[in-house]
Amino acid sequence: MLIVADENIPLLDAFFAGFGEIRRYPGRSIDAQCVQDADVLLVRSVTDVNRQLLQASKVGFVGTCTIGTDHLDLDYFAEAGIRWSSAPGCNARGVVDYVLGSLLTLAELEGENLAERVYGVVGAGQVGERLVRVLHGLGWKVLVCDPLRQAAEGGDFVSLDHVLEQCDVISLHTPLQRGGEHPTWHLLGAPQLARLRPGAWLINASRGPVVDNQALRELLLQRDDLHAVLDVWEGEPQVDLQLADLCTLATPHIAGYSLDGKQRGTAQIYQAFCQWRGVPAPVQLADLLPERDLVQIELNAASDPALALATVCRAVYDPRRDDADMRRSLSEDPIEQRATFDLLRKHYPVRREIEGLAVKVRGESAQLAQMISALGAVLV
Amino acid sequence: MLIVADENIPLLDAFFAGFGEIRRYPGRSIDAQCVQDADVLLVRSVTDVNRQLLQASKVGFVGTCTIGTDHLDLDYFAEAGIRWSSAPGCNARGVVDYVLGSLLTLAELEGENLAERVYGVVGAGQVGERLVRVLHGLGWKVLVCDPLRQAAEGGDFVSLDHVLEQCDVISLHTPLQRGGEHPTWHLLGAPQLARLRPGAWLINASRGPVVDNQALRELLLQRDDLHAVLDVWEGEPQVDLQLADLCTLATPHIAGYSLDGKQRGTAQIYQAFCQWRGVPAPVQLADLLPERDLVQIELNAASDPALALATVCRAVYDPRRDDADMRRSLSEDPIEQRATFDLLRKHYPVRREIEGLAVKVRGESAQLAQMISALGAVLV
Ligand SMILES: NC(=O)c1ccc[n+]([C@@H]2O[C@H](COP(=O)([O-])OP(=O)(O)OC[C@H]3O[C@@H](n4cnc5c(N)ncnc54)[C@H](O)[C@@H]3O)[C@@H](O)[C@H]2O)c1
Ligand SMILES: NC(=O)c1ccc[n+]([C@@H]2O[C@H](COP(=O)([O-])OP(=O)(O)OC[C@H]3O[C@@H](n4cnc5c(N)ncnc54)[C@H](O)[C@@H]3O)[C@@H](O)[C@H]2O)c1
Repeated sequence: MLIVADENIPLLDAFFAGFGEIRRYPGRSIDAQCVQDADVLLVRSVTDVNRQLLQASKVGFVGTCTIGTDHLDLDYFAEAGIRWSSAPGCNARGVVDYVLGSLLTLAELEGENLAERVYGVVGAGQVGERLVRVLHGLGWKVLVCDPLRQAAEGGDFVSLDHVLEQCDVISLHTPLQRGGEHPTWHLLGAPQLARLRPGAWLINASRGPVVDNQALRELLLQRDDLHAVLDVWEGEPQVDLQLADLCTLATPHIAGYSLDGKQRGTAQIYQAFCQWRGVPAPVQLADLLPERDLVQIELNAASDPALALATVCRAVYDPRRDDADMRRSLSEDPIEQRATFDLLRKHYPVRREIEGLAVKVRGESAQLAQMISALGAVLV
Repeated sequence: MLIVADENIPLLDAFFAGFGEIRRYPGRSIDAQCVQDADVLLVRSVTDVNRQLLQASKVGFVGTCTIGTDHLDLDYFAEAGIRWSSAPGCNARGVVDYVLGSLLTLAELEGENLAERVYGVVGAGQVGERLVRVLHGLGWKVLVCDPLRQAAEGGDFVSLDHVLEQCDVISLHTPLQRGGEHPTWHLLGAPQLARLRPGAWLINASRGPVVDNQALRELLLQRDDLHAVLDVWEGEPQVDLQLADLCTLATPHIAGYSLDGKQRGTAQIYQAFCQWRGVPAPVQLADLLPERDLVQIELNAASDPALALATVCRAVYDPRRDDADMRRSLSEDPIEQRATFDLLRKHYPVRREIEGLAVKVRGESAQLAQMISALGAVLV
């Protein structure tokens, strides 16, 4: 079997070497000739996979190590009987860690106890749902807005209006939808932003245009009681410099950039590939991930749970580093600024996830055990 | 034996209960009547101890749990044959941790490797000498300016001029001396400040007036290549609000405020007391300090030492919290501002020292072992 793959996909050999020959190419240069003899094509977001690319080939499976599928012509795949898989949620946990780190920064700046705020999560898919579970697990008050899930499942969902009215923290996790029944383009436009509660915190690590960036800039100029944390930007890699300046944390679309997340992408298409082949999938991501730099943290059972939470989360990831890197790179020259935005993403440092971190407790503490389990860390 | 003590001295019973009765008073209300029958007087900086207080008493030993002795009339003690002890260096390690934490913040903001800077330590007494040892241990380049020690010991000292010329980081650790051969009042005045190297970092956790605060403010307004970190302020608890705003980190004279340091103060006068009594001093501070919230950190031998350093130091203490607390408290109203400065010091959260933290390494790494030992942490 011939597997043609984007050379930047991690762990290709570890997952796929047993199935045949792997030929690697730069993602942007994968063309019809490269895939001519291929049975399987593995890509990232930079390769458009459509009829033109595949019609002369015998490719029967396409895997993309990304959560998005905009670069795949799924109609053609259906027509041609090509099985495919993306990697939904592969980097969702990284975004959760980013939100936690941002909350800890804001709590420190305001001298607040995070348990006293009401959280609104807008969009409860791969990222949002994981975030809701963590916040619930920590015992915090969370309202969830997801009209699509509400329509499909019923249950405890609230409206965006309700979130704007009730929540001190709003974290956005919807896709970008320009049309349809539930568009998300400028979901937080000027009228919604104007209704943010006094002292509210707004976090956007979904897609830039879900927030009207110009309206947010105007609002932040007027209300210094608010905090905004932006990982995604309208028009990125171009960034509104004044808006970045007004944000408490500003980062270059890296919320989900954990090493675990990147490698999980390959693991997910490997799983789908094995299913397609009808063979077992014995290779486990956990066995392939490199050992963590931070092997374990041991806490005293008497520790204050809020301080312990901060110690654990920050020891793994603190978004202030990425904020500093981005602020240094902001340039008045738009060409330079766009280039550095992309470079920061390309040369992103290795970051691990809180999930799976080994945490030990000296003595017994139900509160700490609950906190550790809520984070998805492993009590050892 | 009757021991009269300031009620705010920690661990009094643990160290002194075996020697007789302990009578506690608020430090400011200790008067001649309180000490009339006392053999021993234990104070903090708020009690003036002089002839007037002691002459009608039989006090033979005075201990102050402070590094300063301005509140003790040492001439009178000599004349009256009263033995005394202060607690030199008891809080020196806390200041070292503060400097380390500040350096890590600045390195993150500038995206720099701390090993590439040249450090100048001005004043190499209890604090400065400990700092020099840590920086040397980390393998960084350090120049030391201490003309008094230079005169007494000779050795590798440099002039302040040399520090200003050569160092990218200057950390001040002199006493405040208005006169004498080596005055330190405005040691960094306008002319010296003007000579700071491009991109230099200035840290002052010694005494406020060692830096001309007005000149520093003017300088920072002009040169945004510099970073200033101030823990001490000319005229504190009154703070120059504009200067605080221009400082990268601004804290309310808490650099040395570790719990270990406070309790070490009592341990040191206990040692001196036992010597005075000619008895052994079996009680050990290490046995009395409460268990740490952060019991242990385990690092992988393959960790990058610079990242590992940041993880260990910040997990124990990150001055950004104190900076945030101070900035929130800054008020245009001078009375309110002075009051909150004092309150922040009075209600300072429990902070432990990096020295003594248990750090484990999975695998073998000479570099990590060296880093851990340089920090005074304990490789377990
Ligand atoms: N910043 C990053 O690094 C990063 C990383 C991963 C994902 N993302 C982005 O985060 C967003 C969420 O990703 P995901 O993987 O969870 O997607 P998902 O498709 O799994 O979940 C999206 C959820 O939003 C809901 N939704 C749709 N329209 C809505 C509306 N108008 N109001 C409320 N909810 C609505 C959907 O019902 C769905 O449950 C996406 O925009 C994705 O591109 C960013
Ligand atoms: N911010 C805090 O929380 C905190 C805590 C502890 C100490 N301090 C302050 O830090 C300073 C140092 O404290 P310490 O306990 O190390 O004092 P120390 O007396 O042990 O050491 C001071 C050193 O400075 C040297 N020195 C004196 N004049 C000098 C000059 N002109 N140039 C260079 N060196 C000179 C002395 O020779 C001595 O070695 C003091 O001002 C102290 O009050 C502040």
